[in-house]
Amino acid sequence: MPSHEFYMDLALSNARTMKGQTDPNPLVGSVIVNHNRIVGVGTHLKAGEPHAEIHALRMAGDQARGGTIYVTLEPCSHFGRTGPCAQAIIDAGLKKVVIAALDPNPLVSGNGVKMLEDAGIEVVSGIREQESLKMNEVFNKFITTKRPFVTLKAASTLDGKIATHSLDSKWITSEDARRDVHELRSEHMAILVGVGTVIEDDPELTARIPNGRNPVRVILDSSLRLPLDVKVVVDGAAETWIFTSRTYDRSKKEQLEQAGIRIFETSGETRTDVNDLMRILGENGISSLFIEGGGTVNSTFLENRLIDKVVLYFAPKLVGGSNAPTFLEGRGFELMKDAVDLVDGEFTKIGKDFKFTGYPEK
Amino acid sequence: MPSHEFYMDLALSNARTMKGQTDPNPLVGSVIVNHNRIVGVGTHLKAGEPHAEIHALRMAGDQARGGTIYVTLEPCSHFGRTGPCAQAIIDAGLKKVVIAALDPNPLVSGNGVKMLEDAGIEVVSGIREQESLKMNEVFNKFITTKRPFVTLKAASTLDGKIATHSLDSKWITSEDARRDVHELRSEHMAILVGVGTVIEDDPELTARIPNGRNPVRVILDSSLRLPLDVKVVVDGAAETWIFTSRTYDRSKKEQLEQAGIRIFETSGETRTDVNDLMRILGENGISSLFIEGGGTVNSTFLENRLIDKVVLYFAPKLVGGSNAPTFLEGRGFELMKDAVDLVDGEFTKIGKDFKFTGYPEK
Repeated sequence: MPSHEFYMDLALSNARTMKGQTDPNPLVGSVIVNHNRIVGVGTHLKAGEPHAEIHALRMAGDQARGGTIYVTLEPCSHFGRTGPCAQAIIDAGLKKVVIAALDPNPLVSGNGVKMLEDAGIEVVSGIREQESLKMNEVFNKFITTKRPFVTLKAASTLDGKIATHSLDSKWITSEDARRDVHELRSEHMAILVGVGTVIEDDPELTARIPNGRNPVRVILDSSLRLPLDVKVVVDGAAETWIFTSRTYDRSKKEQLEQAGIRIFETSGETRTDVNDLMRILGENGISSLFIEGGGTVNSTFLENRLIDKVVLYFAPKLVGGSNAPTFLEGRGFELMKDAVDLVDGEFTKIGKDFKFTGYPEK
Repeated sequence: MPSHEFYMDLALSNARTMKGQTDPNPLVGSVIVNHNRIVGVGTHLKAGEPHAEIHALRMAGDQARGGTIYVTLEPCSHFGRTGPCAQAIIDAGLKKVVIAALDPNPLVSGNGVKMLEDAGIEVVSGIREQESLKMNEVFNKFITTKRPFVTLKAASTLDGKIATHSLDSKWITSEDARRDVHELRSEHMAILVGVGTVIEDDPELTARIPNGRNPVRVILDSSLRLPLDVKVVVDGAAETWIFTSRTYDRSKKEQLEQAGIRIFETSGETRTDVNDLMRILGENGISSLFIEGGGTVNSTFLENRLIDKVVLYFAPKLVGGSNAPTFLEGRGFELMKDAVDLVDGEFTKIGKDFKFTGYPEK
């Protein structure tokens, strides 16, 4: 007889495939098993449409009765757009419910389990919990904190340099790695750089892949130095939001606003306050932020411990140079024991480069 | 019928297992096959003892006649300590010889093949050539250039830092990675650091593993700043050699020599000339050099393109800091296209750290 993990893996696999099409809802998958046969499979397809459990129950029909339902996320107990799934499970006569992760929202977490148990149904939870949590890492952070999930991205040589001492940076990583970055941009709601990067490179900051979604372009620009003729101001390819300190040129603000740019003032005296920025982004519905700054901007987020995930592309080359900038500059931590430790780290090959993914230990 | 590669892999596998016990000879393995049966296996065990082919021929005895012999290195054609192996193969009546790599020594390369072919034996070469060349990478470089094979080793955070801005470096990598470094030290004939590292850390630079062989400790010290009371001067754990420029304190030289230290003057006016150092090390029989310098020393070898292999240990942590030293400082290359490209690169996990191995493209 296959294990709980076997069926939950199928539910996870179906759920993951919907990546990008369920926003702002999480990815959820479900499988119903009766007498060792799979009798229903469901996955949440789109906000406003039925939850995964409902699809699986419909497919199973009468065969759900007496069976076991696997769900990657605790069934809801509230009357949302589709009615409580826990009630639907009770009504269908299931005997057992196996759950990967509880609802991340502390206000309702555990309520679905309670409703099921009160109806005499056996509930097993925690099966593939980590996999389910990671699958919805953005959703879970946003729903619980109202702050965006922050991914730091950098591309450097193996010795950590993002340019030579003469600031030449063309090219570090290969085409394959750069295409992967465009995929990631497309998966995020906003992308952030410092105004220095805009002034130097005049980037488009768009997702240049087929059907790519362009994220909101967020610029850290404490004193509104942003030129009026750069692409992020004039190209109209995506929204551009600027975050300033309290000290900036008010007439420049008017000019930028007339060009369709949104300006957000933060409480920093002369530097943009990044904690304010995080709050404001959350209030404006930005659930995921992709940081592609230079070493100073990146370090600001590192030192404020605001990073949730790290994606680093390393080109297999060595350039050296005590004055060559690295992807994490700023002041840095005083002692090595204070460095940000990364867990669940792994390297994969991407073209001729290497991609590291890891998570700052919380 | 198994392929040439199948038998050559067995020969390589036997040869590799002798790592460290054949110096100054290369690793060589051999397999004899007759009527699809393996009738002899041989490997070179120790300098002064028979070559791999001789062991295999002895094991095969009469069953060698008419068979095929696999050798990871071209059979020798000269009268060394054991007589020419090519002649022994001819005498034993083999029909075919399959070779991985030709002799790296340009003075004799191809001679063994010629002797075999002149005797009417079919020769196939290039089977698992890269594997054989890599297995003897140190030997091959030394025999062809009389310069040591240089491995650059560094241990850093993922952002390339070897210390914080306050120069705190305890600890970056884990116990497992540090043990691996001691293994590598033990496999090298010499280990090199700058005098700055000695003054700051007073290291032993020994291989602290069971049966570890201590490499010669080579110190780059252009003006003989080395204190007389440091471990590498007083502990007697291994030889210590110092390489200076032409400008240094002659009386300090006498004191150090009295302490048993060897001093080598290079042609550099005020800085040690590393090309001279390479030549002198070669002349003194040092076939492998392990560089564990700070960022400046490492960069000197990088910029002079003297590095043959790179071994980097990355701790999964981020520390940041524009003043935090990286493992490659110095001036560095002017343009990104001049950076040293690494080929055959791979990451492996070692404890909680990551180990990168790669080879500068020649």
